[in-house]
Amino acid sequence: MRFDLVLFGGTGDLAWRKLLPALFQSFRHGSLPAGGRIIGVGRGAMSDDEYRALIAQRLAEVEADKRPSDAEFARFAQHLHYLRMDLSQPADYAALRELLQARDADTVVMYLATAPSLFTTVCEQLGAAGLATERTRVVLEKPLGHDLPSNRAINAAVREVFSEAQIFRIDHYLGKPSVQNLLALRFGNAIFEPLWRRENIASIEITMAEQLGVEKRGEFYESTGALRDMVQNHALQLLCAIGMEPPISADADAIRNEKLKVLQSLKRWTPETVSRDVVRGQYAAGQIAGKPVPGYRQEEGVSPTSQTETFVALRTEISNWRWAGVPFFIRTGKRLAGREASIVVHFRQVPHAIYRTPLGAANRLTIHLQPKDGLTLQLMAAAQSQADTGGVQTLSPAALDLDFDQRFGTERVGAYERLLLDVIAGRLNLFVRADEQEAAWQWVEPILETWQQANARGESPRPYVAGHWGPGAASALVARDGHSWMEEF
Amino acid sequence: MRFDLVLFGGTGDLAWRKLLPALFQSFRHGSLPAGGRIIGVGRGAMSDDEYRALIAQRLAEVEADKRPSDAEFARFAQHLHYLRMDLSQPADYAALRELLQARDADTVVMYLATAPSLFTTVCEQLGAAGLATERTRVVLEKPLGHDLPSNRAINAAVREVFSEAQIFRIDHYLGKPSVQNLLALRFGNAIFEPLWRRENIASIEITMAEQLGVEKRGEFYESTGALRDMVQNHALQLLCAIGMEPPISADADAIRNEKLKVLQSLKRWTPETVSRDVVRGQYAAGQIAGKPVPGYRQEEGVSPTSQTETFVALRTEISNWRWAGVPFFIRTGKRLAGREASIVVHFRQVPHAIYRTPLGAANRLTIHLQPKDGLTLQLMAAAQSQADTGGVQTLSPAALDLDFDQRFGTERVGAYERLLLDVIAGRLNLFVRADEQEAAWQWVEPILETWQQANARGESPRPYVAGHWGPGAASALVARDGHSWMEEF
Repeated sequence: MRFDLVLFGGTGDLAWRKLLPALFQSFRHGSLPAGGRIIGVGRGAMSDDEYRALIAQRLAEVEADKRPSDAEFARFAQHLHYLRMDLSQPADYAALRELLQARDADTVVMYLATAPSLFTTVCEQLGAAGLATERTRVVLEKPLGHDLPSNRAINAAVREVFSEAQIFRIDHYLGKPSVQNLLALRFGNAIFEPLWRRENIASIEITMAEQLGVEKRGEFYESTGALRDMVQNHALQLLCAIGMEPPISADADAIRNEKLKVLQSLKRWTPETVSRDVVRGQYAAGQIAGKPVPGYRQEEGVSPTSQTETFVALRTEISNWRWAGVPFFIRTGKRLAGREASIVVHFRQVPHAIYRTPLGAANRLTIHLQPKDGLTLQLMAAAQSQADTGGVQTLSPAALDLDFDQRFGTERVGAYERLLLDVIAGRLNLFVRADEQEAAWQWVEPILETWQQANARGESPRPYVAGHWGPGAASALVARDGHSWMEEF
Repeated sequence: MRFDLVLFGGTGDLAWRKLLPALFQSFRHGSLPAGGRIIGVGRGAMSDDEYRALIAQRLAEVEADKRPSDAEFARFAQHLHYLRMDLSQPADYAALRELLQARDADTVVMYLATAPSLFTTVCEQLGAAGLATERTRVVLEKPLGHDLPSNRAINAAVREVFSEAQIFRIDHYLGKPSVQNLLALRFGNAIFEPLWRRENIASIEITMAEQLGVEKRGEFYESTGALRDMVQNHALQLLCAIGMEPPISADADAIRNEKLKVLQSLKRWTPETVSRDVVRGQYAAGQIAGKPVPGYRQEEGVSPTSQTETFVALRTEISNWRWAGVPFFIRTGKRLAGREASIVVHFRQVPHAIYRTPLGAANRLTIHLQPKDGLTLQLMAAAQSQADTGGVQTLSPAALDLDFDQRFGTERVGAYERLLLDVIAGRLNLFVRADEQEAAWQWVEPILETWQQANARGESPRPYVAGHWGPGAASALVARDGHSWMEEF
């Protein structure tokens, strides 16, 4: 298959850190279709060879086992090209058209790894230049807007030029092997689905915890915050994967239809429920791994009176027959005590206990997304220890583990590699449809509004000491359901 | 607690191989109550010290980490005593009484590790000598009879002297950690019980495979056979543990009531269903681990025209709401291809497949009893391999494993150690009640009768080559349900 991948933002951070390394990996794995060109687009003037040299330099910095040898890079470099473009100039799109027409690929991927503010312009220009043909696919990186109206505006502008089936909205969490495995787990195994409902599940806990602060992105983060940065997209996508009904097939729209239904079934917010069930926090100075770190308001590019949240904890429900009454807890934040992304399915206690178990011990299934990638099923087992010889048998927790890297290690592909290959192959399964995205924005909108009003009253997120698990109110939130957040995974 | 354990058959095979090593282990673990005497009873004249020397000799032959040091044995030896008895002589029971009265223990355990033909005599004599007091417990080793009438006769004779609560019928499979864990698993976890029924389970497969032949026990085995030796007791006990309803408590009778119900619910045999659903086999010469071994009929003590089965495979059902229609397959035999005791719960296929899976792959839970001791849950997972990048996602089997030795290793107790401590403590949970045993005999009776008639017609068990998995008819038996026996565990 002959493809051209036009990488807008070809000299940007995302291209260097994620996209070009992922493209090289798929080249190395032999899964990048042979006849493809990768055309980096940037503002500066540069020859193909200069661009290749820059990429070589970056690839020499990745983990040792992912670095190319010279010979390997020389072969990969044949795919790489560079085009200088001013993205507001129609003439530059004409040059792009010429470059593309010279080859006439089956598939042209327009990867918009630029600032989102350029999405509308680029799409319009592509349309005007006759570059939005049926063979074209467009990839949009987050954030797609900062609220429902701006999201709708971007989607509307893009859809003036491209049909929904041509639009690949990236949520890189969906490329994570564990997230895809979550669907495989639920719908490729007969043993989970009968348990996967309110009768058997006490609560669902989604954690996306970072130890990093805002780093160099203070300015960007000030106008974003944790709710937009993590909850509206990644957390809700995970919630959908956990909560969705079995799709009629593994096709993209069958799956996205079911995810949409989940988003539409999420309990709607009122100002009262936002106050009660959503906790926002902001990190204060503290320690990470024994080293002092500054508070958020002391970070570069951040206002000393910032009201931006770096932490969100919330409780919601899916209002349908399967899930009614089951709390879904979401927690995400920066500068927390651990780096961990995982989903924990907490099963109910046994309805009738004939053995002793440690206080609060129950079955749970943990889907680890990060840093490890696997499954843990916590069971209660009889230790058969000396201690048991005294009377009533006491059970102890024991874990059944599956480490995906260990099991499938050598052949696996990373999130961006997977997503890029899917774009080239035209598989939409792991991309977000406009209506999903809008439903997600619609759901967070009342939270944003309530916070805006609180800000206007001079209220701020609750401070928490960097290196802890967020403000105490987050614990109080879940304690109402008799729950406590996991702190060890 | 002061106990006396009187070991009838104190110089017999079981005492040497199992009971005295287990008693030493519980001494080492500190779980043998301090004030106890162990009184070996045998026919020959011997002093306590001579008996201790014999035991020291035997204990020096066990696995290295289970051997006592000299100092350790010296301390253990203080518990050990010897009494010469002719089990038919009332005078010798008087001597025993004197020995016991000299000390007046709280609990006296009469452990009958003798030939079963002596059970009735010993119990009668114990009763006549006034040795069956309320403080006395009696332990009976298998086989308790060779059919329903003989089993009933023994139980009746024993119960002339002892009440049911004083009688500890050993099935050492019940002492195996995995078997006890099976109950813990089912009733100490909330996630199995909802799956544990006909809606979700396709079949249950119980395998007890040995690579050994009859060794020196040809004469005994000739009048026993695999059905009596393994199925009537061990296999049915495992089947009960898998099939029973949740007991109201973990008390002995609560559990035994439920096991009894399973035995009473087993599908009754007719001569036709025995012919159709039970396969008996007998090993012919073959190879085990590359070495030639003789056929059963060539073994010492075995008739060259023997009709005794060394292999049984059968299909049965539990006729109740939970299990109706679910086949329970049992397979046991000597000189098979592997040494393995395990229970495999085969779950149904997914009702609606949206992913590709390898042919026949489905979820299964394996409870390993021997040689390893643990759990394996087979799942389908997405490998996320390069191979997946081509279209419909294909799932691959992946295992969640729990190795009990690894998890609980150092503190664990062996089967006989556990059972002996339970006898001393008076816990009946892991012992078989008379009505259970009779129900089990009642169920196998028609099989024995049908075979007897077949024998009279000159029919013999189907031969199978030693080192294979039994006769082909065993495979045909399960193929009718679309099943095939596991050959790798």
